Amino acid sequence: MMGQSGGPTAVINASLVGAVQAAGQHDCITAVMGMLHGIEGVLKEELVDLGRQSVQTLEGLRRTPSAALGSCRRKLKDADYHRILQVLQAHDVRYFCYIGGNDSADTSYRVGKLAAESGYELYVVGIPKTVDNDLGFTDHCPGYGSVARFNAIATRDAGRDTEAIGIVDNVKIIETMGRNAGWITASTVLGKESETDPPHVVLLPEVPFRPEPFLAAVKRTFDKLGYCVVTVCEGLRAEDGQEVVASQRAIDTDQFGHRQLGGVADYLVNLVASELGIKARFDKPGTIQRMFMLAASPVDLDEAYLVGAAALNHAVAGVTGQMVTLVRESNQPYRCTTGLAPLQEVANAERPVPSEFITPDGLFLNERYLEYARPLIGGPLPPYARLEPIRVPPRT
Amino acid sequence: MMGQSGGPTAVINASLVGAVQAAGQHDCITAVMGMLHGIEGVLKEELVDLGRQSVQTLEGLRRTPSAALGSCRRKLKDADYHRILQVLQAHDVRYFCYIGGNDSADTSYRVGKLAAESGYELYVVGIPKTVDNDLGFTDHCPGYGSVARFNAIATRDAGRDTEAIGIVDNVKIIETMGRNAGWITASTVLGKESETDPPHVVLLPEVPFRPEPFLAAVKRTFDKLGYCVVTVCEGLRAEDGQEVVASQRAIDTDQFGHRQLGGVADYLVNLVASELGIKARFDKPGTIQRMFMLAASPVDLDEAYLVGAAALNHAVAGVTGQMVTLVRESNQPYRCTTGLAPLQEVANAERPVPSEFITPDGLFLNERYLEYARPLIGGPLPPYARLEPIRVPPRT
Repeated sequence: MMGQSGGPTAVINASLVGAVQAAGQHDCITAVMGMLHGIEGVLKEELVDLGRQSVQTLEGLRRTPSAALGSCRRKLKDADYHRILQVLQAHDVRYFCYIGGNDSADTSYRVGKLAAESGYELYVVGIPKTVDNDLGFTDHCPGYGSVARFNAIATRDAGRDTEAIGIVDNVKIIETMGRNAGWITASTVLGKESETDPPHVVLLPEVPFRPEPFLAAVKRTFDKLGYCVVTVCEGLRAEDGQEVVASQRAIDTDQFGHRQLGGVADYLVNLVASELGIKARFDKPGTIQRMFMLAASPVDLDEAYLVGAAALNHAVAGVTGQMVTLVRESNQPYRCTTGLAPLQEVANAERPVPSEFITPDGLFLNERYLEYARPLIGGPLPPYARLEPIRVPPRT
Repeated sequence: MMGQSGGPTAVINASLVGAVQAAGQHDCITAVMGMLHGIEGVLKEELVDLGRQSVQTLEGLRRTPSAALGSCRRKLKDADYHRILQVLQAHDVRYFCYIGGNDSADTSYRVGKLAAESGYELYVVGIPKTVDNDLGFTDHCPGYGSVARFNAIATRDAGRDTEAIGIVDNVKIIETMGRNAGWITASTVLGKESETDPPHVVLLPEVPFRPEPFLAAVKRTFDKLGYCVVTVCEGLRAEDGQEVVASQRAIDTDQFGHRQLGGVADYLVNLVASELGIKARFDKPGTIQRMFMLAASPVDLDEAYLVGAAALNHAVAGVTGQMVTLVRESNQPYRCTTGLAPLQEVANAERPVPSEFITPDGLFLNERYLEYARPLIGGPLPPYARLEPIRVPPRT
């Protein structure tokens, strides 16, 4: 049985298809079931027959963003686990592959633990997925390469826009996703080819926000270029560890207690305008960034499929209580294989951007980050041109 | 001499290259100059030699978004026009092709008028450009097809996201650009294939916003599907004609008196949360939507090149005081040619989305809009799949 959980990505369906097609290779598997809306589908016994999907449907899903089975964010209660076991037993489920981030790893771990305690033979293997790239034990997470490629392109594009019209809209703030980790925001630097290219300042939640050095950096770039592009993580934190802009939504927490963030870009627009007297505007691609299949990384699509297939094969081989990981073997050429890590350790652990990847001033990423992230976006961005700077000699 | 003005687009460089390459066909033209940052480049005599650009550079620019020459939004004063004429005369400029929207048409018109009054032989032909699609006298504007294709894809993508995770984030608001006209927002419907597909509600500035019918429509969709996707124009207006959310920026008007808009999505998120008790979030792709070359419409790219070349050819043939227009000849197959319209009439006129394109309730677009807009995005969107709804029979 398979399910998808947490925030959708451009490649989470590729992982599902990888697992389904791998299941088709094993004679011991007689039925492949999918949970509708993750673990909620088990609780409600709302299951889809994945084994009877046509080849065209499955191949189409490999290039379709978002979670085809539907997703969820449900913090399970103790009573829920008994119901889950009841449904799994009723359908004689032996392999449980759940695609998601750390909350999903927690769910998978508990399902496996309960099955073991109950003497029910069940092989539970997690499939990593999160655009946030914040899971431990894996080199990176499927979904990250694609959101990174989108943000690299979008920042280059929006930067060209600001460069052209910077004479009017001087500062551009681009707000990316990212709850506690700045991996997505970091990826905005991946389209930068020269010092003048955007972004010029990157604000990560790993670095406590201080207005003065930020404003000084913006002013420096503005004075030099006439414009400035800043990228910022929605989860930016102040020196006291609190979010810079706490959400004011009427309903603003999910069941895991995560705040729905928003508004940090607007805050920075106003800060720049009021403190520096410079006009600013913001772009916030929001969920579009994690869905945009046109900008998906081919490496990410392949690896998402790979971890899905690997999870199923491991489960059939008798592995349980583990999550498939990605293990980088070399950078030139880029080669990655899969490994395993205990679900219990993956669960609820978060991996921030390490300080070794961040410049000493805390306002940019260094070469070590570039070496890490460049291979993940699957090749260079589409080439753009610039006019050759051949000036006409003045005559007046 | 050529220049680019106003908000950049994905295809404004294609128009520039069209004009430059057409100029190369005329023996009477011995030099091709580009204004840096539009008319500002003339005032400061900052000019680029476009005639000496390599073929590779020009071909690369056809696929490079944003204004390669730099853009501007400058409301000219009377004294400026005499300086402009001085620079044009110093460089013996005979053809003046300015790419832009209605403000740019106004600038072009005045330059041509002053030249004529001064007895200086100058042929002025405007090249239309605006993602806002709000110029009169032309079937549509280069730039629109591409921003429309991006928004059609982004809305479909973000809609799939909400469909998957709607169980948590129930309502999604997508804010598009659009100062006074709702053409861009309208384009969000172009990826909709069935009644349940997003968007479910479209808020245009042409229809005064009333909270009650809006909230009722959101509630209706939410009750039926469990989620709802709303697209809204940044320039949404209330019944008194004022913007629903006036910008609170410290510096918020450009020299033409346009307000820098923003915040309507945030307003709606809070309205939905407080009035309906439904959790909402917003995406605001901002300037990314007008730049995203990966989603550019091939029809738009071709037409942008076409109007650039046509303007130059008309100027050489002795036309002046006109803007090139796009004239649709047929829809099946889609065929479009060019025409001309007086710059003076184009200047400062705006064409809103006509009421014939809007459904009676004011909250969606009808089939007539689809017939108008579908050909402009250059073919169907990349195909996405859905799981076949083969349910596993319950056993508990």
